Amino acid sequence: MNIIERIIAQKTGKETVKAGDELCVPVDLAIAHDVTGPMAIEQFRKIGAEKVFDKDKVVFVIDHNIPSSSVDSRLQHNSLKSFYKDMGIKLYHQGDGVIHQLAAEKALYKEGDIVVGADSHTCTAGAFGAVAIPVGATELAAVMALGTIDIEVPQTYLIEVEGHLNPGVYAKDVILYLIGKFGTHGFTDKAVIFGGNTITNMSFDEKMTISNMAIEMGAMIGYVNQGEPIGEVEATYRIQASDIQPQVACPYSPGNVKPVKDVEGTPITQVVIGSCTNGRVQDMEIAAEVLKGKKISDMVTMIVVPASKKVIEQMDHKGITKIFRDAGAIVVNPGCGPCFGAHQGLLSEDDIAVSTTNRNFPGRMGHNKAKVYLASPRTAAESAIAGYIVSPGSVLPWRDDCEKS
Amino acid sequence: MNIIERIIAQKTGKETVKAGDELCVPVDLAIAHDVTGPMAIEQFRKIGAEKVFDKDKVVFVIDHNIPSSSVDSRLQHNSLKSFYKDMGIKLYHQGDGVIHQLAAEKALYKEGDIVVGADSHTCTAGAFGAVAIPVGATELAAVMALGTIDIEVPQTYLIEVEGHLNPGVYAKDVILYLIGKFGTHGFTDKAVIFGGNTITNMSFDEKMTISNMAIEMGAMIGYVNQGEPIGEVEATYRIQASDIQPQVACPYSPGNVKPVKDVEGTPITQVVIGSCTNGRVQDMEIAAEVLKGKKISDMVTMIVVPASKKVIEQMDHKGITKIFRDAGAIVVNPGCGPCFGAHQGLLSEDDIAVSTTNRNFPGRMGHNKAKVYLASPRTAAESAIAGYIVSPGSVLPWRDDCEKS
Repeated sequence: MNIIERIIAQKTGKETVKAGDELCVPVDLAIAHDVTGPMAIEQFRKIGAEKVFDKDKVVFVIDHNIPSSSVDSRLQHNSLKSFYKDMGIKLYHQGDGVIHQLAAEKALYKEGDIVVGADSHTCTAGAFGAVAIPVGATELAAVMALGTIDIEVPQTYLIEVEGHLNPGVYAKDVILYLIGKFGTHGFTDKAVIFGGNTITNMSFDEKMTISNMAIEMGAMIGYVNQGEPIGEVEATYRIQASDIQPQVACPYSPGNVKPVKDVEGTPITQVVIGSCTNGRVQDMEIAAEVLKGKKISDMVTMIVVPASKKVIEQMDHKGITKIFRDAGAIVVNPGCGPCFGAHQGLLSEDDIAVSTTNRNFPGRMGHNKAKVYLASPRTAAESAIAGYIVSPGSVLPWRDDCEKS
Repeated sequence: MNIIERIIAQKTGKETVKAGDELCVPVDLAIAHDVTGPMAIEQFRKIGAEKVFDKDKVVFVIDHNIPSSSVDSRLQHNSLKSFYKDMGIKLYHQGDGVIHQLAAEKALYKEGDIVVGADSHTCTAGAFGAVAIPVGATELAAVMALGTIDIEVPQTYLIEVEGHLNPGVYAKDVILYLIGKFGTHGFTDKAVIFGGNTITNMSFDEKMTISNMAIEMGAMIGYVNQGEPIGEVEATYRIQASDIQPQVACPYSPGNVKPVKDVEGTPITQVVIGSCTNGRVQDMEIAAEVLKGKKISDMVTMIVVPASKKVIEQMDHKGITKIFRDAGAIVVNPGCGPCFGAHQGLLSEDDIAVSTTNRNFPGRMGHNKAKVYLASPRTAAESAIAGYIVSPGSVLPWRDDCEKS
């Protein structure tokens, strides 16, 4: 068995588990947000469930539309509040942060746990060694009632990245490179383990960037090797870190990946730094190092969306928020911000953005024709100053003593 | 002549000016924001104007939908940016703040100046002794082209408030009391001068709260006495400050004013502190004193909208932002926030809010049936903790050494 199978075996009390097994797996944590949660609640009530399986293991977070961007989004908030009142589940409704970041900060994503989330980026939990499965709202309703999920154990693949990263190459570039290499359907319904010393030596901030985008390769489960023996997998792919250049996912797919240098000079009108992909303190530090004492291009709107209250508090403490504001950026409240196209920075058809978020499908951040380039915080910050896409190192040259190694 | 007439006479070069005179008045400053500006630009181009009368005297501020709350609002931003590029006018598009606050901070509202603004709360400029006239977007287009505005000199009324304010009574309570007393049509198309030692001794933060809401009494011009002789007016109203209790404007009109004690106990679901009415440092300090070390009620969403980047920087510096966040409030980027009902905190029909903003018409902040009570930052902050409307002093008792006098 591999590590994914071992975790499932342990949870289900089976001696062995293999790909293709259909199992009913106990769930350690069920999560949803203000868009999916109300749908799950509606289904939960329709099936006649009276209480959740464990009120401490059901966690809702209002992060997608916070503060409410419409009357309808306010109704969604009120639905969660009402459920919280009735059921005593956990609810974070005070702008605490993006669900995945908040769950990480609250240590809700635990090694060896089964996490079920009504959000496609539930795979983020894999950074901490949880087996995290994204579901639709209806399936979440059943999980909330039963405390179990029926799954077919997926085939598991291992991707190992080895060696030192080049200057200007970050976790985001690594995962974009992998998505470009394997495609957006490369691992559909499979489990992917990320390993190799490049990744296992990363900070949790960075590991979360990697696991967060496993879904963009179609993976059902994204899991970062925690150091235990991995065991037998379907196939292993080995990547040399030194082969990876700064990457960008061009419109209109996270799989349409190119080296940044291929699109240098593309004029831009907006830059977004944040989200569950790249809205953590380390990301903000990288961007702030670039922006310190500089001004963003006059025609660029730069939006910074910290992934949580804890992140913005650390940003405030380190002087990063002020660096952003002084450079001309708009620092919004923690949450999902403009990432999923509901508010706080939507684009018209004439706009071209560089964003550290995870998706750039048509219409994802506004108009169907708006163009979004997904990139690292470093590439995004340097491009914000230039007013067009630049390779990292163009605006702030590399110094020997601070090179990313 | 009274002071309003003297300013107009000076600008037009007339020896005497009286109410009813129809005059073409040179304009010192023409302002608009992201909702009215694009309409004015469209009209400006339709009338065939090629350039603005003075590019340093036309100032646009993106404050209503920032960051863009929709594709359409982004198009509005792009319209302003394009005009800025073509005409060289001043444009603030980096989340700098609400137009009236920003103009005050940049010292654009000058004593004796004529200000024309495509925003109903242009009267805010009266706090600084400017004669400020609100116009529609079409009229602003003509002003932008010509540098003059045709007006009929209004009749002028004087309201004097004298003496010490009671504990828990702030500038907001004073202006609400006056709107309640005179009604929302009390001074339609008139000029109102605010005087008396209660008002003239106020800080500029407070004077702006007073002048900001002159329009809610219908006034064409709201002007705070700067200490010069006032001259002859149509009528003078004298109010004793000691007669004013903490006030609240109940749904659905700023004129539906009652003492707070009459609605105590009304359950609430949202509190908003901010806006061009009450989003300044002094307002934030008043709210923070209440919230320090406390938690807002679990079912209340509290949104704090600083009126400018300068305000939030001072809040950060003084530790106020952290007090708000620790109490459970959501601190959003500077701008208009939810005040005018486009984003960042809209209400459903079941919601009841206490807000420090200036209007509570049906639908102003979301659903037509949502109920908004307008109040001071002190009343709002205390109510946020209680979870229902309370009189100031209920949550944080008055201390002799910090009583408002």
